[in-house]
Amino acid sequence: MTPEDIEDLLLEMKDTSELMVDLAYSALLYDNEEIARQVIELEESIDAWDEEVQERAVQRALEDRDVEKALVFIRLANSIETIADGAVLIADVVLRDIEPHPVVAAALRESDTAIVTVTVPSDSPVTGKSLGEAKVASETGMWVIAIRRGPAWIYGPDEDTALREGDLLIARGPEEGEEELRALLSG
Amino acid sequence: MTPEDIEDLLLEMKDTSELMVDLAYSALLYDNEEIARQVIELEESIDAWDEEVQERAVQRALEDRDVEKALVFIRLANSIETIADGAVLIADVVLRDIEPHPVVAAALRESDTAIVTVTVPSDSPVTGKSLGEAKVASETGMWVIAIRRGPAWIYGPDEDTALREGDLLIARGPEEGEEELRALLSG
Repeated sequence: MTPEDIEDLLLEMKDTSELMVDLAYSALLYDNEEIARQVIELEESIDAWDEEVQERAVQRALEDRDVEKALVFIRLANSIETIADGAVLIADVVLRDIEPHPVVAAALRESDTAIVTVTVPSDSPVTGKSLGEAKVASETGMWVIAIRRGPAWIYGPDEDTALREGDLLIARGPEEGEEELRALLSG
Repeated sequence: MTPEDIEDLLLEMKDTSELMVDLAYSALLYDNEEIARQVIELEESIDAWDEEVQERAVQRALEDRDVEKALVFIRLANSIETIADGAVLIADVVLRDIEPHPVVAAALRESDTAIVTVTVPSDSPVTGKSLGEAKVASETGMWVIAIRRGPAWIYGPDEDTALREGDLLIARGPEEGEEELRALLSG
């Protein structure tokens, strides 16, 4: 589904590029090729949206004669595409890599924003609640990047994504957020 | 100050590139050329670290004969540099721009992660406390990107940065985090 307006396209591109960067680092940390492949897949959407922005920006310029504005839209789409390219390069390292690189992963764990995995326990008070209802982000500072549910993955869950027992969450946030997230899930 | 190890260099590059992306979007949202110029300045550090990683990776390969590992280091540094390039492109839009683009800014405000500004009030209980002590990130989900203190800016403050009355915080996080941040600062 492609958004209607150039502005909405840019917004979608921004959010997707940020998800791609988070997923790429997650793939690297956990040496996970499945997540890395999802980054490559999202890049296709980014490329399509980038072209769409260019076309619509030129179209709109024909109507409102505002060349400067059209160029701003095109440049911003290109900027976001460049960020997404960086995520793809990280994912490529994971996919090309012959063996995992624990040293790099260990270094990245020291980052300002930690990436952690936490499982929703069987007696969790958040089971059945959405991420928004459980206030995961605002109560713990942790942003859920992806959820592994059985063999399936949910990439970039939103506020309305409901949590289930056994869900494995990959989340990013401040170091002390991991403990708070575990506490929230345990009740 | 340049870190000693390749791993630490990569970590520094990662954290700096993320700060650059956050600052670039902030500059765009608030049409702030000062913040945009800071992004350009940080790019110089990224470029220097990128070269440093390349040199040290090749050096290390001479010692441990692990060509594959050296290439992983070099590719990761290039990936991060690409992400930083995207941030620079956004900052360039802000710096080249003749007039602000409220439509783009309005669209970006709808992002999954909001960027907001909040001032530390005069009777705030967090005055004198560090960001870590005040648990800003883990209590509200908001990540402080920059602090404007009088005419000066603190870019990418860390856990030890103490808050002062009148500080203007630029923070990013979940939409509902803004209210929680205001509540935390007001006590």
